[in-house]
Amino acid sequence: MTLKLYFAPGACSFVPHTLLEASGAAFEPVLVKLHKGEQNAPEYRALNPHGQVPVLVDGDAVITQILAIVGYLDAKFPQLGLLPQEPLARARVMETLAWMNNTVHPTFTHVFMPFKYSDKPDVQAELKAYNAQLYRPLLQEIEALVQAAVAQGRPFLGGPQFGPLDAYALTLLRWGGFAGIDPKGFPAAWAHVQKVAQLPPVARAIARERLQLDLTQAG
Amino acid sequence: MTLKLYFAPGACSFVPHTLLEASGAAFEPVLVKLHKGEQNAPEYRALNPHGQVPVLVDGDAVITQILAIVGYLDAKFPQLGLLPQEPLARARVMETLAWMNNTVHPTFTHVFMPFKYSDKPDVQAELKAYNAQLYRPLLQEIEALVQAAVAQGRPFLGGPQFGPLDAYALTLLRWGGFAGIDPKGFPAAWAHVQKVAQLPPVARAIARERLQLDLTQAG
Repeated sequence: MTLKLYFAPGACSFVPHTLLEASGAAFEPVLVKLHKGEQNAPEYRALNPHGQVPVLVDGDAVITQILAIVGYLDAKFPQLGLLPQEPLARARVMETLAWMNNTVHPTFTHVFMPFKYSDKPDVQAELKAYNAQLYRPLLQEIEALVQAAVAQGRPFLGGPQFGPLDAYALTLLRWGGFAGIDPKGFPAAWAHVQKVAQLPPVARAIARERLQLDLTQAG
Repeated sequence: MTLKLYFAPGACSFVPHTLLEASGAAFEPVLVKLHKGEQNAPEYRALNPHGQVPVLVDGDAVITQILAIVGYLDAKFPQLGLLPQEPLARARVMETLAWMNNTVHPTFTHVFMPFKYSDKPDVQAELKAYNAQLYRPLLQEIEALVQAAVAQGRPFLGGPQFGPLDAYALTLLRWGGFAGIDPKGFPAAWAHVQKVAQLPPVARAIARERLQLDLTQAG
């Protein structure tokens, strides 16, 4: 099998994981145990020197970074309509995807992995608390994006088809649970996440990653 | 004039600024004085609720986020070859562009605007110092990217033509100066920056923004 995805359960690699499932193509999912430090093993660093997931391997090509992988999968599987082809509509999706990736995602990284930004435990504790508060209004923005899509009759965030924005929104809303932020506090976004989670390709990725969507729930 | 770019001198808006100059198209550059808080004025927030530069306006369309703007300009000015059309080569450029935008750029934000991550002055001071140290190896990675391009006979980071990676590399290397990191410590990257700075479109953007490339030099 030439197509491989290196992923970690619950990480942002969920985005390409769902897109590959949606493609219907055969691919080998390779689980990287971040809590065991497998991303720092020499073999993994040889694949991705940054030691991050996701990594997409297609034959001899090794591609990192969600935005690059999404563009590549869109070109490889044009029938999926992962990204709009019309330049302005495409820019709209890329704008939100870039914002999720360079703003919402790293704000959460300050909560989940504050050691990336400081080696001092007291500074890390401050970062965790402060950025958890910053994360809430960002999820509120995702709530507004879903509300706008509903108001405009768009079934998914990027248009008529399921795409990377829907999978990333699910991931980001789910992560809020780690910071004690109840996803049900964002009713339109939470309803969207439930709908998206029931799409067969997304459900398969959720099952493989063994994800619980609402982490604020007991059990 | 329908094409407008909102930019701040020395900010990452330099990237689309150079691309628009390279396009030869008429555009209106609109300077946003970040130090005077113009990005928080209601008129600007109406344009971009995140209060950031760059913002590209094309007729009725308002586009934010460098990665979205670059894709849009590539589609609008295909003759410039801003991004490769072949999917894997395109993914290669997008991968580096996304890394610059979600890793190198925000690491510097911790140095330059630590107040974004904490409201406590002592935590801000820690973030500034720690992240300045993290920034150095990231510039070393840019040095390695330029060395690889030279070794492979590619005149620019993304291929045969000047593109977004070259403009972003210039910006990121220049920013190092604010953290006391001498750009001349990265000889291949610094030589590349000098070469890029002399391209007429880039030189025009530098002149308009009144940029000094080496901020560690007196004067």
